[in-house]
Amino acid sequence: MIERPGTGGELPLSGDFNSFPVARRVNSFQAVAMDDDMEGGNLGPYQDRLRTFPNMRTKPYTPMIFRLLMRINVRVLLVLLLVGLGAIFYIGARTSPIIVFVFSICIISFLVSIYLYKWVLSKDEGPPEMAQISDAIRDGAEGFFRTQYGTISKMAVLLGLVIFSIYMFRSTNPHQESSGVGRATSAYITVAAFFLGALCSGIAGYVGMWVSVRANVRVSSAARRSAREALQIAVRAGGFSALVVVGMAVVGIAILYATFYVLLEVDTPGAMKVTELPLLLVGYGFGASFVALFAQLGGGIFTKAADVGADLVGKVEQGIPEDDPRNPAVIADLVGDNVGDCAARGADLFESIAAEIISAMILGGTMAKRCKIEDPSGFILFPLVVHSFDLVISSVGIFSIRNTRDSVVLGAIEDPMAILQKGYSVTIVLAVLTFGLSTRWMLYTEEAPSAWMNFALCGLVGIMTAYAFVLITKYYTDYKHEPVRSLALSSATGHGTNIIAGVSLGLESTALPVLVISVSIISAYWLGQTSGLVDESGSPTGGLFGTAVATMGMLSTAAYVLTMDMFGPIADNAGGIVEMSQQPESVREITDLLDAVGNTTKATTKGFAIGSAALASFLLFSAYMDEVASFANVPFNQVDIAIPEVFVGGLLGSMLIFLFSAWACSAVGRTAQEVVNEVRRQFIERPGIMDYKEKPDYSRCVSIVASASLREMIKPGALAIISPIAVGFIFRVLGYYTGQPLLGAKVVCSMLMFATVSGILMALFLNTSGGAWDNAKKYIETGVLGGKGSECHKAAVTGDTVGDPFKDTAGPSLHVLIKMLATITLVMAPIFL
Amino acid sequence: MIERPGTGGELPLSGDFNSFPVARRVNSFQAVAMDDDMEGGNLGPYQDRLRTFPNMRTKPYTPMIFRLLMRINVRVLLVLLLVGLGAIFYIGARTSPIIVFVFSICIISFLVSIYLYKWVLSKDEGPPEMAQISDAIRDGAEGFFRTQYGTISKMAVLLGLVIFSIYMFRSTNPHQESSGVGRATSAYITVAAFFLGALCSGIAGYVGMWVSVRANVRVSSAARRSAREALQIAVRAGGFSALVVVGMAVVGIAILYATFYVLLEVDTPGAMKVTELPLLLVGYGFGASFVALFAQLGGGIFTKAADVGADLVGKVEQGIPEDDPRNPAVIADLVGDNVGDCAARGADLFESIAAEIISAMILGGTMAKRCKIEDPSGFILFPLVVHSFDLVISSVGIFSIRNTRDSVVLGAIEDPMAILQKGYSVTIVLAVLTFGLSTRWMLYTEEAPSAWMNFALCGLVGIMTAYAFVLITKYYTDYKHEPVRSLALSSATGHGTNIIAGVSLGLESTALPVLVISVSIISAYWLGQTSGLVDESGSPTGGLFGTAVATMGMLSTAAYVLTMDMFGPIADNAGGIVEMSQQPESVREITDLLDAVGNTTKATTKGFAIGSAALASFLLFSAYMDEVASFANVPFNQVDIAIPEVFVGGLLGSMLIFLFSAWACSAVGRTAQEVVNEVRRQFIERPGIMDYKEKPDYSRCVSIVASASLREMIKPGALAIISPIAVGFIFRVLGYYTGQPLLGAKVVCSMLMFATVSGILMALFLNTSGGAWDNAKKYIETGVLGGKGSECHKAAVTGDTVGDPFKDTAGPSLHVLIKMLATITLVMAPIFL
Repeated sequence: MIERPGTGGELPLSGDFNSFPVARRVNSFQAVAMDDDMEGGNLGPYQDRLRTFPNMRTKPYTPMIFRLLMRINVRVLLVLLLVGLGAIFYIGARTSPIIVFVFSICIISFLVSIYLYKWVLSKDEGPPEMAQISDAIRDGAEGFFRTQYGTISKMAVLLGLVIFSIYMFRSTNPHQESSGVGRATSAYITVAAFFLGALCSGIAGYVGMWVSVRANVRVSSAARRSAREALQIAVRAGGFSALVVVGMAVVGIAILYATFYVLLEVDTPGAMKVTELPLLLVGYGFGASFVALFAQLGGGIFTKAADVGADLVGKVEQGIPEDDPRNPAVIADLVGDNVGDCAARGADLFESIAAEIISAMILGGTMAKRCKIEDPSGFILFPLVVHSFDLVISSVGIFSIRNTRDSVVLGAIEDPMAILQKGYSVTIVLAVLTFGLSTRWMLYTEEAPSAWMNFALCGLVGIMTAYAFVLITKYYTDYKHEPVRSLALSSATGHGTNIIAGVSLGLESTALPVLVISVSIISAYWLGQTSGLVDESGSPTGGLFGTAVATMGMLSTAAYVLTMDMFGPIADNAGGIVEMSQQPESVREITDLLDAVGNTTKATTKGFAIGSAALASFLLFSAYMDEVASFANVPFNQVDIAIPEVFVGGLLGSMLIFLFSAWACSAVGRTAQEVVNEVRRQFIERPGIMDYKEKPDYSRCVSIVASASLREMIKPGALAIISPIAVGFIFRVLGYYTGQPLLGAKVVCSMLMFATVSGILMALFLNTSGGAWDNAKKYIETGVLGGKGSECHKAAVTGDTVGDPFKDTAGPSLHVLIKMLATITLVMAPIFL
Repeated sequence: MIERPGTGGELPLSGDFNSFPVARRVNSFQAVAMDDDMEGGNLGPYQDRLRTFPNMRTKPYTPMIFRLLMRINVRVLLVLLLVGLGAIFYIGARTSPIIVFVFSICIISFLVSIYLYKWVLSKDEGPPEMAQISDAIRDGAEGFFRTQYGTISKMAVLLGLVIFSIYMFRSTNPHQESSGVGRATSAYITVAAFFLGALCSGIAGYVGMWVSVRANVRVSSAARRSAREALQIAVRAGGFSALVVVGMAVVGIAILYATFYVLLEVDTPGAMKVTELPLLLVGYGFGASFVALFAQLGGGIFTKAADVGADLVGKVEQGIPEDDPRNPAVIADLVGDNVGDCAARGADLFESIAAEIISAMILGGTMAKRCKIEDPSGFILFPLVVHSFDLVISSVGIFSIRNTRDSVVLGAIEDPMAILQKGYSVTIVLAVLTFGLSTRWMLYTEEAPSAWMNFALCGLVGIMTAYAFVLITKYYTDYKHEPVRSLALSSATGHGTNIIAGVSLGLESTALPVLVISVSIISAYWLGQTSGLVDESGSPTGGLFGTAVATMGMLSTAAYVLTMDMFGPIADNAGGIVEMSQQPESVREITDLLDAVGNTTKATTKGFAIGSAALASFLLFSAYMDEVASFANVPFNQVDIAIPEVFVGGLLGSMLIFLFSAWACSAVGRTAQEVVNEVRRQFIERPGIMDYKEKPDYSRCVSIVASASLREMIKPGALAIISPIAVGFIFRVLGYYTGQPLLGAKVVCSMLMFATVSGILMALFLNTSGGAWDNAKKYIETGVLGGKGSECHKAAVTGDTVGDPFKDTAGPSLHVLIKMLATITLVMAPIFL
């Protein structure tokens, strides 16, 4: 165990916060085996039971890939690594110098992330009672992760086989045969990309969770010394996983691209053109979004079922505070933060970036082909360069948050939000600069010398859109502003009016983001259209690529945003550990402050995620239409909703969003019900829990939530996967019998568009109303309208409970669903034709 | 006053239901001036106050049109009527024998409705305390109606001027000039049609309310004698307004059609073709939907604000039962049923039928023109014939509900739902028969001899869709089935889980209706397409008309459905009067039973309304596209959502639905807040109210709700009117500067389609969740899960409160909004070109 610094030891390990013996309270979370300086006496007959607590970890879990690696000799590993790197750089060099640049940046950022990880792990884990709680959380999280990803990987294998057979039996056209990529090759390529995407997404999720379950206790421990140090640890831990997630998305696509380039001898006579290469990458995006969907669903159900269940019995029935150690579901709740927020959000952002890069590459390729640009690689590889710069500037942003010198003194606490915001400002300014640089470098062509400036402006549009989304989300969810305040006021007349007001607030909050996104789409499109890039017939063609560049602009600070997002659950967990290990009030104040900031960053990054999904959606339709045109070898550039079947596709697409949200919410309700029953049972069977005389069975709660949420994630997940495939196939058959060519593809496209529009609105509604309810409750807890315990507060708690599955299960799952629909239609396109 | 039959007098006028003096209780609702056989003594000093109660009616209100008519000598009136009828028949005869048929049927049905009205009014008004309450309700409802329609008519005049100037300054093309309808003519025609539509819609709403405020007390009185008689009165009162509403929609359009036919010398050489005539009628539809939107919004806000406000203070804070006379907001609540349900639903259904008839006429005309059918009038006038038959068969259905002989004996109560259902079955069977008859008569052509059979099948599809919608709504909202039962169960864990479960239920309930409507649209389209009707080039053209016929099939029992719908609020009001006038338990049992049935019919007819709106929507898009093509004189038959602006239009359309729902719900919340404050104030200032020692000031509550809901209806209403116009105009300008012809028209069309899809789903969600919450509460009140007063019941009451604005304000307003958007785009089309 790492040595604890002096400051930790100097703080009292337990204060007289409640009215029962200090020793008993502290000891109830101590294993007897530990080298601690407190008396372990007067525990009597249930000392044995205590020993069971740290042994929730039945066997230490290390993912198979690490176990395999660990078995290999270190020198052999090093040689393998060097050979691997050499191979990557070799194929990179054979492809394009840009790829070599991307590889280099990614490797540097991985080194930076290793530094961050070592820095975080070098911090102390605090007193043993903290470490024990952290261990329990880690075991719960890793246990859930293992079974969850076990289930997901089985489904992925099955789906991989389905994709393989679809590609093996699809009809091809002479054009495709001549390009050298036959049925078998394209089947292997697509499935391999799918599995690589799924694997990388899984690793991204694991990394997010892995660091957060280790950082949480270190943040708690540091909170005993200084707020600033605690903040820094949380930020750097978040930064580690953000860099890994973004870096892996970029490097994965770069490796795939370079490998295919070399293997298929692209751009040699008789082989495939480089402008068509990006279409082969869609499998990667689908693999990523497939895993992200189930990760978000399972994790989201887990976290909110545990939260709602714990609150319903703990807070409402028994009247004990949140994160109280007497609540049997408290560890499950803390585990949920890690699997629901960290792991799932890691997979979500990984998938966003991957999908956006691939669709932008497809559009860049199509445009370069139409405009007959001599060297199209600049347009195709542009997204990879933008995200390489993202890694650099976000690292600068992360490192700009430094510890102050006087970390030993518990001085006046700065506003952590201001510190994070400063880092974000640094990153945004750098993003504008590097974006201009990348457009000049990559997008300058002789044909249209001023095009790069137009695209730089598109990027600016994207960056401003991101900023506007963050502001709007803040306005609707922060209790400094009117909406949340009047929501709090409406709680004064009861539960019902609170819910009505919250629902109205959420529905209303969709308006401004939609206006912003509308302006962005149109202005980016027109900046692109007027860029001077024209096709053979002289008509402008840069419009869609302009939208793509705006999306990249929006995501150009993704790594920093993800850092802020990861910060939230780590701070939340640290607060939970502090509460459970009964630290002094001053320590709790610090973690409460960090937790509150984390709530705000979580809400704003959700706005960011949905904004980028909205902007990217239009990109993904276009990529899909390009793909269909390429497969069917006929022009496919419009979706006419005046055709009844196409309109019905739209109706079904919107309905899918409603049904999916329903099932996601009701899954939380059902799982929470099981938690409630278990917690009630424990309170009845172990009446000593309330007096700290008996220890609750935390692990049973964890395993109940885990198995229930794994069961519950299947239904909505399967709906999302199966319905576009089924609709596309049914209408393909219908089109065949009624003589309407490409009907399946058209119907799927309109389904996708309507689902995207409804999904954006529904996700905005769910996220914002959930966040507003949460903060209205927090506002009342500051003492207004009667404060904690008043009737008004009870009504606000009801709102918060309703908001939980809205904002943390259904809402974020919808982000993933929107992009998953786009990638599934891209991959499954052959089935609709 | 009409003589009360003996049975009324024999019943005790007051039983010992509560623990305070009988005389005081009864007298508190008695005016001293009345000839009653009870002692008016011991009232002391507040006898004076009592006198004020029946005098809420400051001056008796009769609409201006009736006042003008009443001033004219009866003989002159009769002559005028005959001359009018003669003129109508003359122009009808000059137009088409079908029009004469339609006129005749409508006049007969008006005579039938006069019979029904006389029959209902001949029933006794019960004891004076009932009549007084009824008077107060009538005065409140008429007062609100007067100010509401005053506001609406001012807005209508303004809008009429706007339409006029738009049509005066629009650009025309040579084709239009040559057809003989110049700018000025079409401006006059459109504005005249608009005003006529608005006027008729207003009358429809007034008639609905007029009969219900008179029938309610007669139902209460009859409930003292027999359930069957009460049911019959309520059904016949509903039937009266249903026949008037449907008849007026049909006859209004028929008169307009015939007048334009004669005035414009249609089908003479050099003049307009008859196939283009229906396009001139769109103003009528828009006028109707404009008035319906504000009627539904104002009425919906009124009824639910009063309901929620009354419940929050009465039930929750003071613990007095619903409709208790001590609650100052109780009269406002009862007034709300009339203005919110009767008047608004009358205007809503009027508008549905008008919009559907006009769009079907447009489509019929277009198809007849394309197919070069010799006599196109059959296809154009088909909808009028279908609804004429609707009047006949629904009358049969209404009269099939008869009083049993032994009405004096309070025998075993039959299930009123079964009786209503039997009437519905009769109507449905007749509808199938007459529909087949009408298709054979109207749609038989030499060119395609079997086409009429295909269209008859389309009608059958529509009738089956209506039936399926009713079944699905029943499944999700009736507590005999699984969904509501598990919703009730989820109330056991608190307010929060109840809301989560209700929201999930509502969201889930959108799935089956969407599947049904999808199957209907596609199958009706294909039945039409394969009907054998082909255009010049030989391609089939009957598809859209097939969808239109299915919509007509769905609405072919509209008058009976409207009867069932009107039944609900009348029964509800009767229950309120019985409760307030403290009738014996047995009487309350009867009205409670009728009220429960009314709730079910209200929920199912909402399903019917949204189903027909969904089916009609596709029709209205097509009519709009035909209209744009005709105005711009270029083909306009596709809406390509792959164009960014068009996609943005869709995004804005869906957002409009969310924002509108938000504003509708929050309007209820704000208005209810004012009611709560007023009721609380009265309870504080008049502490004697709770002991029946002081009389609450009912009229103040009524006027507060009235003025607040009139104020609150403006914002969402203006949003709905202005946003499509603004979007169309902005994109028209944008299209002009970016060189995209017809951009405004395309964007508006996609806005309309996305808004329709989102609107259907949102309305289904709001209606179903609201209905389910209501019935979950009722289910618990039957005694399960702890019954009334338990924690579980409290949670269910919260759900019911949330559901109130969902199902009675936002949901029904969305039905109207969907159709209003379609008609506004039809009328405003010149502005987008």
